Amino acid sequence: MGERIPNWLLQRSHISPNKPALIFEDQVWTFQEMKDIVQDLQAKLASSLKEQDRRAAILMKNHPKMVWLIHALQQLGIEAVFLNHRLTTTELGFQLQDSQTNLLFYDETLAEMANKLREENPQLRIYTTTQYESFPNQQLEIRDEYDLAATCSIMYTSGTTGKPKGVQQTYGNHWWSAIGSSLNLGLQEKDSWLCAVPLFHISGLSILMRSVIYGMPVYLMEQFDEEKANSLLQSGQITIMSVVTAMLSRMLETLGMKTYHSSFRCLLLGGGPAPLPLLEKCVEKGIPIFQTYGMTETASQIATLSPEDAFKKLGSAGKALFPAQIRIIDENNREAAPNQPGEIQLKGPNITSGYLARPEANQVAFEQGWFKTGDIGYMDEEGFLYVLDRRSDLIISGGENIYPAEIEEVLLGHDAIIEAGVTGIKDEKWGQVPYAFIAARNSVSEAELMQFCRTHLAAYKVPKKIIQVEALPRNAANKLLRRKLLEYLEQEKQS
Amino acid sequence: MGERIPNWLLQRSHISPNKPALIFEDQVWTFQEMKDIVQDLQAKLASSLKEQDRRAAILMKNHPKMVWLIHALQQLGIEAVFLNHRLTTTELGFQLQDSQTNLLFYDETLAEMANKLREENPQLRIYTTTQYESFPNQQLEIRDEYDLAATCSIMYTSGTTGKPKGVQQTYGNHWWSAIGSSLNLGLQEKDSWLCAVPLFHISGLSILMRSVIYGMPVYLMEQFDEEKANSLLQSGQITIMSVVTAMLSRMLETLGMKTYHSSFRCLLLGGGPAPLPLLEKCVEKGIPIFQTYGMTETASQIATLSPEDAFKKLGSAGKALFPAQIRIIDENNREAAPNQPGEIQLKGPNITSGYLARPEANQVAFEQGWFKTGDIGYMDEEGFLYVLDRRSDLIISGGENIYPAEIEEVLLGHDAIIEAGVTGIKDEKWGQVPYAFIAARNSVSEAELMQFCRTHLAAYKVPKKIIQVEALPRNAANKLLRRKLLEYLEQEKQS
Repeated sequence: MGERIPNWLLQRSHISPNKPALIFEDQVWTFQEMKDIVQDLQAKLASSLKEQDRRAAILMKNHPKMVWLIHALQQLGIEAVFLNHRLTTTELGFQLQDSQTNLLFYDETLAEMANKLREENPQLRIYTTTQYESFPNQQLEIRDEYDLAATCSIMYTSGTTGKPKGVQQTYGNHWWSAIGSSLNLGLQEKDSWLCAVPLFHISGLSILMRSVIYGMPVYLMEQFDEEKANSLLQSGQITIMSVVTAMLSRMLETLGMKTYHSSFRCLLLGGGPAPLPLLEKCVEKGIPIFQTYGMTETASQIATLSPEDAFKKLGSAGKALFPAQIRIIDENNREAAPNQPGEIQLKGPNITSGYLARPEANQVAFEQGWFKTGDIGYMDEEGFLYVLDRRSDLIISGGENIYPAEIEEVLLGHDAIIEAGVTGIKDEKWGQVPYAFIAARNSVSEAELMQFCRTHLAAYKVPKKIIQVEALPRNAANKLLRRKLLEYLEQEKQS
Repeated sequence: MGERIPNWLLQRSHISPNKPALIFEDQVWTFQEMKDIVQDLQAKLASSLKEQDRRAAILMKNHPKMVWLIHALQQLGIEAVFLNHRLTTTELGFQLQDSQTNLLFYDETLAEMANKLREENPQLRIYTTTQYESFPNQQLEIRDEYDLAATCSIMYTSGTTGKPKGVQQTYGNHWWSAIGSSLNLGLQEKDSWLCAVPLFHISGLSILMRSVIYGMPVYLMEQFDEEKANSLLQSGQITIMSVVTAMLSRMLETLGMKTYHSSFRCLLLGGGPAPLPLLEKCVEKGIPIFQTYGMTETASQIATLSPEDAFKKLGSAGKALFPAQIRIIDENNREAAPNQPGEIQLKGPNITSGYLARPEANQVAFEQGWFKTGDIGYMDEEGFLYVLDRRSDLIISGGENIYPAEIEEVLLGHDAIIEAGVTGIKDEKWGQVPYAFIAARNSVSEAELMQFCRTHLAAYKVPKKIIQVEALPRNAANKLLRRKLLEYLEQEKQS
């Protein structure tokens, strides 16, 4: 009963052998060609596997080689741990250790990071693309089917407290996410999806999964470039593109008075709340914008607003996709009335099977099949979702999630610091940026703390400002009240 | 993991309340309106239910009231037993008894049949539409979700031997069938499906299920009418239509030199092998014909040929739908080489959970997850399926399946008959018609036997000819060789 489906790469190359699968710069690969490359790669990778290998990490930038690797690991039944190369080696080292991953594939441009990770973890075997491409081919049994309940990919996210957690995305999560999206956006013979978001994010990976499930070409960009993106959207080759707010702003700025080709039918806007003026500008220009709500734990979108409602429901993330359900739970643990805010809770077959090896976090996050996002929102009378706040304390900066707890933990690692609190401040360019507030036991300069953060945190997570205070706001239970940090900032301005 | 999905009627009316769901003659109902009618009906039907009722039979002609009833039974979690009103009351009586169904809903035009069924089965409670619509409303709990493994509908088919069997179609079978079809045919905002096939067949019921899963209007015809169908296909209102060969022939004949609207994108041709001249005519006229292969046990299509291959692969039923698999097994129980015929075996989440209360038949029909169709076919080098013969002895007449065993059993019930064999003979109008061969112990006229058949069999199943022979052809194991019956006919012609 739907617990297994055909190996989707083989099935797709069987059904649509000659359809383009991937376009990168001036090169095109059909599904048949992609399958052949992947099967060859899979046979090579098999030589590098030890019996106890259950996972392999991918440290790469968007590139066809990354696409082949993702599919080859699926063919081998190896779970892929996606590493964000913007993180520091300390952060990535934790992810490798936490997921007990001893095998890592990387591309040449990230050799320095890979080598550093190996230095810190002597058990780690690392191979660059040129290395693994020269491995001998090993005879392999072909997997006819995928088990929908098996883990396919792992991506790390952080919560309100504690260390980052590995989100397990099953084959079923990706399958149902793709199906839910198609039931909402439709599926057309001429569809092609522009992927200018990182493949190590669910926003990028989900495009690859849709490609093979739908039989749809993906235009892959190594990194986002607003001029290239605009020119593709004007060419008529692209029908759908995924963006975050910061990308959209830059695209509109460069676009000027022009607009996109009439066959471009969907600009899927995710990764955090969008400012109204930006949405209004799209509506004015007739750009078919679809606001969405989703996260790593939902394997991409779980709610999407369609353009026919875009103007009427500006600011809403739309309704649940067909296989999914959304409810709002108030402080009394009851379903909230329309327009009453509460915690957004989600249900559906696209939702993660759980955090890797975190029984306690899973117990907190799941309740009778519902996933508790921690995000705050409400539904109007017609059932349109409005997201007020991504997790009470989540900071979204240029589409990247920043978790205050993570920065606080780094700051607390500094000898001089007694307590630390981080919150997001509105920023015109990035949407939000992190500000830190600290109480120190002895004198320490902001510059020194900044330098300390840079060695432990990805650049985009380093606080833009570190403000010294007497003590941090806490409630009776001594829990840090991050929202109150903003008041300190107001006081500072006034003084 | 995909074992439950939202109650699809409620979810659809939540997501697309104002989209048209059903069009019948000059009336239109949106999904919201349909949901309201169904919820009211469901509350009324609940009053007629006894605790032990697990199933209810539907004896109706295509009509919105039948659509409401189908959805209302799903809301109530009652399995619907679909009765083909072209059958005799003897045949239907068997189906009711076999499925232990004691509740039957019918429309006024079929009152005579319903009353007769009740006469023969005093336990049966029968209600016509006007009766059940006046039942009091009973307060009900709403089913938020459907269990994909639960049986939704039951339709009877016959095998090569024995009594007809009830095919159980689960919610998951319908769901995956709809999804598999959409991944192949695509899904467009403007889609609408013309249903001129009976809702008591899987060809019709599957359109209703797609409608609610896709959010797509269905144009329902009470009965097929080639002129009405042609005019709808010329109007631009319809994008997809399901037909069987006999319907298509009549439509093309009436169409003359004209063709269909450019927005009409798919003529789905199922229900048995199609004659090549008919396919060629469609290709010539630019009619987007999609040959398919499917059956009650696969909850509609499992393979479909797309128009871009229609000419190149004329006569093929195409490739498996994405979630499904097809293999050809030869006489040595090994997978057949390309172009070598063998039994068509199928796998996928759209395949029946099994025949109702037939453990032996299920054991014969299923092997390690594969469903053995008994149909003969081959796959070419590219994996295109060619169906040579629907079950070695299945007769398809005007899109209706006729099982020789069923007719033989009736004939054997006549005092004069010692043995009986039935086979299909080519017929210009119906594709095939059944001919019977009998050996009699005492003299009996063809007319008398015809009359006897008419009282026990649907009109279309009554043999067009009953031919008396000395003895029937049998193999060493005394098994009837139905194919050899044709030789008798040749001999008769020659003599």
